[in-house]
Amino acid sequence: MKNERQLIMLPGPTNVPDRVMRAMLKPIINHRGPEFETLYDNIIRNLKHVLQTKNEAFVLTTSGTGSIECAISNVISSGDKVVVPVFGVFSEKLGAQVSRRGAKVIQIPEEWSSAPTAEQIEQVIERERNVKAIALVYNETSTGATLRDLPKIGEITEENNVLLIVDAISILGGDKLLVDDWNIDLCVAGSQKCLACPPGAAVISVSDNAWEAARKTSNRPYYLDLIRNRELGARKATPSTPSLPLFYALDEALGIIRDEGLRNRFKRHATCAKAFYNGFTALKAKPYPKKDVRSNTVIVVDVPTRVNSDKFRQIMRERYKVIIAPGMGRLSEFTLRIGCMGIISEAETLTTISAFANALADLDFPVDFGAGIEAARKIFHS
Amino acid sequence: MKNERQLIMLPGPTNVPDRVMRAMLKPIINHRGPEFETLYDNIIRNLKHVLQTKNEAFVLTTSGTGSIECAISNVISSGDKVVVPVFGVFSEKLGAQVSRRGAKVIQIPEEWSSAPTAEQIEQVIERERNVKAIALVYNETSTGATLRDLPKIGEITEENNVLLIVDAISILGGDKLLVDDWNIDLCVAGSQKCLACPPGAAVISVSDNAWEAARKTSNRPYYLDLIRNRELGARKATPSTPSLPLFYALDEALGIIRDEGLRNRFKRHATCAKAFYNGFTALKAKPYPKKDVRSNTVIVVDVPTRVNSDKFRQIMRERYKVIIAPGMGRLSEFTLRIGCMGIISEAETLTTISAFANALADLDFPVDFGAGIEAARKIFHS
Repeated sequence: MKNERQLIMLPGPTNVPDRVMRAMLKPIINHRGPEFETLYDNIIRNLKHVLQTKNEAFVLTTSGTGSIECAISNVISSGDKVVVPVFGVFSEKLGAQVSRRGAKVIQIPEEWSSAPTAEQIEQVIERERNVKAIALVYNETSTGATLRDLPKIGEITEENNVLLIVDAISILGGDKLLVDDWNIDLCVAGSQKCLACPPGAAVISVSDNAWEAARKTSNRPYYLDLIRNRELGARKATPSTPSLPLFYALDEALGIIRDEGLRNRFKRHATCAKAFYNGFTALKAKPYPKKDVRSNTVIVVDVPTRVNSDKFRQIMRERYKVIIAPGMGRLSEFTLRIGCMGIISEAETLTTISAFANALADLDFPVDFGAGIEAARKIFHS
Repeated sequence: MKNERQLIMLPGPTNVPDRVMRAMLKPIINHRGPEFETLYDNIIRNLKHVLQTKNEAFVLTTSGTGSIECAISNVISSGDKVVVPVFGVFSEKLGAQVSRRGAKVIQIPEEWSSAPTAEQIEQVIERERNVKAIALVYNETSTGATLRDLPKIGEITEENNVLLIVDAISILGGDKLLVDDWNIDLCVAGSQKCLACPPGAAVISVSDNAWEAARKTSNRPYYLDLIRNRELGARKATPSTPSLPLFYALDEALGIIRDEGLRNRFKRHATCAKAFYNGFTALKAKPYPKKDVRSNTVIVVDVPTRVNSDKFRQIMRERYKVIIAPGMGRLSEFTLRIGCMGIISEAETLTTISAFANALADLDFPVDFGAGIEAARKIFHS
């Protein structure tokens, strides 16, 4: 097993604590029995805490994309007008997904190294009439930009009676996200990112306004029907057979998050992100996003000049056992993406930067190891 | 952990071999990397063998219901005429799911203890014009009836240019199913039944006719889009992040099936089913379905006279550590359901019948232990 000791620094799936992996080995149980009810109860209580919401929340047996489909298809009908800010591959996909639903998509295009502002969104909502919803990616996994104006956008959507649908897939559990305070109507995320679970499940929260919209949506899907989730959820059950291993894993992972505390967890992610940005900058791998939107959970940097991205990642993987991701879309050759998620700590951060520096040296890139490591290290020891 | 040594005799999820459980602990890998491609390749090759098909096949990160949604929503458009034979809870659900898609559902109602015949279906297809598809449940998990005329139905649908969509959720891997020979256009199944995997993934095969239909379906879903699965599948990848633990488990489980051989596996299920029917009959728990449609994978029996079903199952669970399922829908109080799936062997069969007999005795039901056990046992020793 040549991959046994690899460090997974992808922006998801990410490294999973042994406790969480082993939880998947808990016994197969009846998903309509009392043991499952207890499990369900625990998960939902802790999930609501992580989402900082009193809204109802559910776990879906889908990937993150499935949870987006769930959000959209329960409240958006054919012909509805939906605003989608586009600033990377995943927000483009989100637009395509909303469009597939038959909605009229109003795109707000933005430079990929940036993120739209609340002002831009307010203008579009005021200019267009009868906007049903705004669907946005909180953290663009393709560019490493976080839409920091989200709280202000929540104020705008509330004032304008517009539904706010948030894809928080690569950020929930890794950075601040207040579903209730920010008026998020539908918030979705995957298991395999900052929650530090294996992939295979996703989560969603649903506000009163979203329930009202769902009741009026006539061609809701069956498998991802939120109203069926609500009916069964009242009995601490799921409409279809749940992914038991992922429910066990999520239960364990959410317990770990509760033990650590959200504030500590977010601070840990932010500190590691800062170390990454400093370290990579010192190694002449410039952070791709503008400073004010840089993500604390997905680090995207330019490929250093004249370095071949594929070859570089291959060396990192094969010689230094650190797995990072290539760029996406039109950035594929020009950027590298590093996950700063879940269990991330000083150890993984410095190992990654060290492997990064070594791989650069192997490609005869003029690199100052000491400067790179020290720039990162001092963040943890100041 | 009071449930550590329970025997899970539910009609799914079912007992999972340790090898398959432990496979979920394999390392988290990049789902866009070379290791995943190898895993994907193995799974699909073995899956096609289990489905006995040369059609393309995919693994979906959904429950079984999600795979039905996938089949329906890729080839059925609003207004299409779809025939659905209804002979239990799951075929009712299937009808509801097709109807939710906006199709015109032509139900063929049948007694719940029976299954529709090919003749009935042929009559309806000839009477109705422009039937787009027939969607049917091969094995009714709620009644324990198998639609044994499926091969003949495949001839009829082929002659009439009607798509054949088969829910094989509770039977794939446990009884005969020949996707190509029987002209099945879309065949779906869940991981947690006769494949003896944990729940959390589902499978689907897609014929040339189904692909042609999919291309003409304008409002296909996004998450469950088969064409996206095909595009990514050509690169040995999935459109969205796959449930890695379930992919590992499925890989291991399919390997076990290949090692055993389909013929041996089906014979084992059939033998255990026969032992169950004989044993329960001797214990005065009459098999619910008519003799010619009795399933080899889901055993449904009448609750013996004056026995309280809930109390009975509670005793089986708490005193004898054998978990069986209650009846469903209007049969809920009157039947009991036992899974005969996956790892099922003489050991689990006799343990279950013994626990069943003991629980009856505990409720002062006049029971002849010896007759019950012997009726089952002799099937294995003749």
